[in-house]
Amino acid sequence: MLDPKVQQEWIDKGRYFMKAIWNDERAAFESDQDLKKPQPPLVKAPMRPGQTPIVLPRDFETLDLQNDLIKALTQRKSSRYYSQEVVNLKQLSFLLWAIQGVKGIRGKSYATLRTVPSGGARHPFETYLLVRDVEGLKPGKYHYLPFEHQLEWLGEYEDYKGLVNETLQGQSWAAKANVIFYWSFVPYRAEWRYGVFAHRICLIDAGHMCQNLYIACAGLGLGTCAIGAFEDSNANKLFDLDGEEEFMVYVAPVGTIIASDDAHEKAFYQDIIDEGL
Amino acid sequence: MLDPKVQQEWIDKGRYFMKAIWNDERAAFESDQDLKKPQPPLVKAPMRPGQTPIVLPRDFETLDLQNDLIKALTQRKSSRYYSQEVVNLKQLSFLLWAIQGVKGIRGKSYATLRTVPSGGARHPFETYLLVRDVEGLKPGKYHYLPFEHQLEWLGEYEDYKGLVNETLQGQSWAAKANVIFYWSFVPYRAEWRYGVFAHRICLIDAGHMCQNLYIACAGLGLGTCAIGAFEDSNANKLFDLDGEEEFMVYVAPVGTIIASDDAHEKAFYQDIIDEGL
Repeated sequence: MLDPKVQQEWIDKGRYFMKAIWNDERAAFESDQDLKKPQPPLVKAPMRPGQTPIVLPRDFETLDLQNDLIKALTQRKSSRYYSQEVVNLKQLSFLLWAIQGVKGIRGKSYATLRTVPSGGARHPFETYLLVRDVEGLKPGKYHYLPFEHQLEWLGEYEDYKGLVNETLQGQSWAAKANVIFYWSFVPYRAEWRYGVFAHRICLIDAGHMCQNLYIACAGLGLGTCAIGAFEDSNANKLFDLDGEEEFMVYVAPVGTIIASDDAHEKAFYQDIIDEGL
Repeated sequence: MLDPKVQQEWIDKGRYFMKAIWNDERAAFESDQDLKKPQPPLVKAPMRPGQTPIVLPRDFETLDLQNDLIKALTQRKSSRYYSQEVVNLKQLSFLLWAIQGVKGIRGKSYATLRTVPSGGARHPFETYLLVRDVEGLKPGKYHYLPFEHQLEWLGEYEDYKGLVNETLQGQSWAAKANVIFYWSFVPYRAEWRYGVFAHRICLIDAGHMCQNLYIACAGLGLGTCAIGAFEDSNANKLFDLDGEEEFMVYVAPVGTIIASDDAHEKAFYQDIIDEGL
């Protein structure tokens, strides 16, 4: 058991981090943007340059999509039981566009405007995929190129279940997902502008992004359930991130769902019933 | 200017907070839920009990809504210039439902299931409104009651512009909003389950919630632009929060927008053009 005094210190630190406090010693901070230092790239460069990337279809109007905003908001839920049917490339393309799609540029190359908002339009995230079963894609690891709306192939894996176990703290339900989204944070992209104040804002931004995944999944009839508790170092290692200038912040498996699997889904909450809560 | 060493310490702390790290000294933590301590209420009790609350309309199918998921995702943007036309109660009701609407209960009273996801379904937020101009509502302060989908009246204010200035660090553009959403965080509601690990997850949850506001606004043709940099203590004071067991985490003004105001909107980014960025 954690020493109660140490526990309280962590609680206090966590709460402090969550608060919009600007008048502590940090107030004297000047950003690298203020100091006219060059801004970092808006997106991560391809990790395997020279390789032919995978073009993602953009004709979303031909998707089998329940294109109803109210229904998507209503039907959004977390799903941890996946039926292992087919997910196709156009569906995956729609999900990638919904979470990080670039709609335009602000200034000459000051910021990307995307489907989701981000503090100061810094968009400090990168999206990686661990693909198990997506029609038109080889199983393997991918990196999303948001400017081009393309994927770059990062390589094969040996043991999907093993990787899920290692990176997601044994949350083995995720191994039935068709594809797992791993989102990294590139701190300096936001720190250049916000410095010591960047991190609070960017963690909120991760939620903006993931909510669009939930809603896009609801529209497509797919299931997802975001994972905040994953294994930091293993997830970084899986995609060759250094864990300092880029590290994973959020993960979301996506899979097919069918209504008749509802009992399986409910089983995840059986302990709540058992405990009479 | 902030001492570079101190600055680096804050950067390091911020990055550490953002990482999904579970194997530091916190790993010994046992939650109050594990210890079978009683769980806190799922929502905040009415602050003015005995008062007749305002029932919010739920017939969203009669809304003047562009009920198109792809368009809502595409057209979502941040808007800081508001045309000060009418927002009606049904539109506001739709926004409140989209961000925090209760769809069901898990267990006897273990958790609320809402339109947005939240780690462990803790839903540790409360929603407050500062209303300037919503048809069918007196200008004033309100608290949202998610179970009942009702508003409770918290009282009048004297000086809208002054309050916007004081609570939002002089971001005077927000004074043209029809209504401003102030979201508080009730730490123990999440700490009961996640303790020392609660805060990272909950900050992401604030983003889930706000993204639904953006999307619902896009559907209604309204504008919003979330504010992470507000004045913590003044915002807490505005709604009588103690700043410790409940404090503000995020703010979003909502107002009407018209396409012909685009030049006003662009003016917010003029410095980027001027600096040649």
